[in-house]
Amino acid sequence: MSFAPERCSVVPVPLRWSDMDAYGHVNNVQFLRLLEDARILAFAEWFGRARSVVGEGIIVARHEIEYRAPLVFRVEPIEVAMWVTRLTGASYDIGYEVRDGGVGSTTYALAETTLVGYDFEAERPRRLDPVDRESLSTFLGPAVPFRHNSAKRAERTSS
Amino acid sequence: MSFAPERCSVVPVPLRWSDMDAYGHVNNVQFLRLLEDARILAFAEWFGRARSVVGEGIIVARHEIEYRAPLVFRVEPIEVAMWVTRLTGASYDIGYEVRDGGVGSTTYALAETTLVGYDFEAERPRRLDPVDRESLSTFLGPAVPFRHNSAKRAERTSS
Amino acid sequence: MSFAPERCSVVPVPLRWSDMDAYGHVNNVQFLRLLEDARILAFAEWFGRARSVVGEGIIVARHEIEYRAPLVFRVEPIEVAMWVTRLTGASYDIGYEVRDGGVGSTTYALAETTLVGYDFEAERPRRLDPVDRESLSTFLGPAVPFRHNSAKRAERTSS
Amino acid sequence: MSFAPERCSVVPVPLRWSDMDAYGHVNNVQFLRLLEDARILAFAEWFGRARSVVGEGIIVARHEIEYRAPLVFRVEPIEVAMWVTRLTGASYDIGYEVRDGGVGSTTYALAETTLVGYDFEAERPRRLDPVDRESLSTFLGPAVPFRHNSAKRAERTSS
Repeated sequence: MSFAPERCSVVPVPLRWSDMDAYGHVNNVQFLRLLEDARILAFAEWFGRARSVVGEGIIVARHEIEYRAPLVFRVEPIEVAMWVTRLTGASYDIGYEVRDGGVGSTTYALAETTLVGYDFEAERPRRLDPVDRESLSTFLGPAVPFRHNSAKRAERTSS
Repeated sequence: MSFAPERCSVVPVPLRWSDMDAYGHVNNVQFLRLLEDARILAFAEWFGRARSVVGEGIIVARHEIEYRAPLVFRVEPIEVAMWVTRLTGASYDIGYEVRDGGVGSTTYALAETTLVGYDFEAERPRRLDPVDRESLSTFLGPAVPFRHNSAKRAERTSS
Repeated sequence: MSFAPERCSVVPVPLRWSDMDAYGHVNNVQFLRLLEDARILAFAEWFGRARSVVGEGIIVARHEIEYRAPLVFRVEPIEVAMWVTRLTGASYDIGYEVRDGGVGSTTYALAETTLVGYDFEAERPRRLDPVDRESLSTFLGPAVPFRHNSAKRAERTSS
Repeated sequence: MSFAPERCSVVPVPLRWSDMDAYGHVNNVQFLRLLEDARILAFAEWFGRARSVVGEGIIVARHEIEYRAPLVFRVEPIEVAMWVTRLTGASYDIGYEVRDGGVGSTTYALAETTLVGYDFEAERPRRLDPVDRESLSTFLGPAVPFRHNSAKRAERTSS
């Protein structure tokens, strides 16, 4: 079962043996590191190679990630599917599915990152480039199907 | 201004020079690494030193983090305030404020982690230990005041 | 100019954007991380995939590395050439050249690692497997042409 | 038994849980990361806090490290003793002992780093500042007592 929409970018992301922690699984923090690399590859496709480096005029404002299955190091890259879940004039959210790839693919994590346009010289937020917004809009898709939702924040204790 | 409730654990977390990325700021992924270390220190206080190592019968199921100010390496540790934002029989959420400490402290990030009891031998979720729940309940506090909320997931495009 | 002998294993090693530090170059410590991944790939070729994971009955006893040129993140993998520089009954040294690949390739670093056979169950050094020694001997080549040598350790101060 | 000379700088270096790898020990590459932090602290003492950041006009040209005992994560910092093993007009070597501290201290690793003066604006090597050389000369001590030596590079195979 796949969680990503049909219209998405799918990039292969190599693991490192050192992504595993003392429990012998890819560490939960390292998943965010894999997403960083996935963005670089997808942005090369979305915005063109010359502008692909993460952070060029863009700031990471927020991450949310849910883990669904343990991942163990392997030589073959994992696959990250990426799409746009929200798009405004000054920021956008990216949805991710971290998965095996192939038939019967396991989904290891679902995640979302909020990116905000930023003018590093003037040191203030900036509006997104219209050409970039156009590119992003073609990847606009559904919300990430997280299990957790803010409604749960209301309930605070139960047995 | 502080975002953490009065009843919380405050632990000092040392930075490393290598936490900075090519933009000269502590990298957004490394903030999660700092929270990992903060949990180890707080858990030693909450559950006793002998059981303080992250992950002992506990799985990280989810992270959410919002960045509020850039952080640059310094020799002095930063300060992480931690409290419990949700507590059920089998899981709990921890809220974090990553801040300078001291008067007029800057808040660098707010975050939340969902932890789930897990029996590694039987390879299945487990209920939390009653003694641990008791400890956790004394740190139960308000929700993390994130700017982002799920309501925003409904709106998906605007200029 | 190449420093590796003709008979060597050459493996592609992908960089990560986060390998760069605040100076905008791949950090000197991360070069050792790249060598770790290179070993895993070369060992799969030398000893067979099933036994390729670093550290299976082998301990890293020593590293030596000299940096020759700054390396900046790029999407294309760098190339690591590996050969054996010393082989005894219980340990061996691996030489590495970290380079661009292709014509006029830049050499970023030269390095050497000492690996020692170890029996983790008995918790003591072990002799190398004869079949492994046989494989290793086919990659036996010259010493790494380091600039630094122990003779320099004699001289200790000069202007 | 201690390997560092009496005249040396001793700095506490905190571990991170994530320094451990899938074998449950502090990873061999992470030891170099600990040395990076140790240099920052020692340089603050040697050259003054304002100039303590690693790499300010200095380039890491070489590392050598030998591992002597496995290290497991703990909340208490380890101790790194540092001294100068070679000093010329344009470069110097630092010796390190990574150890427990205290009576009967275990030595986990011995290491040496070559640092070279560099003018980043002119993009070329530079001579060391006379005041810095003066500071460094007061920490000049014996060579690092490595087990490995270049003589071994001559012998290349034996059983």
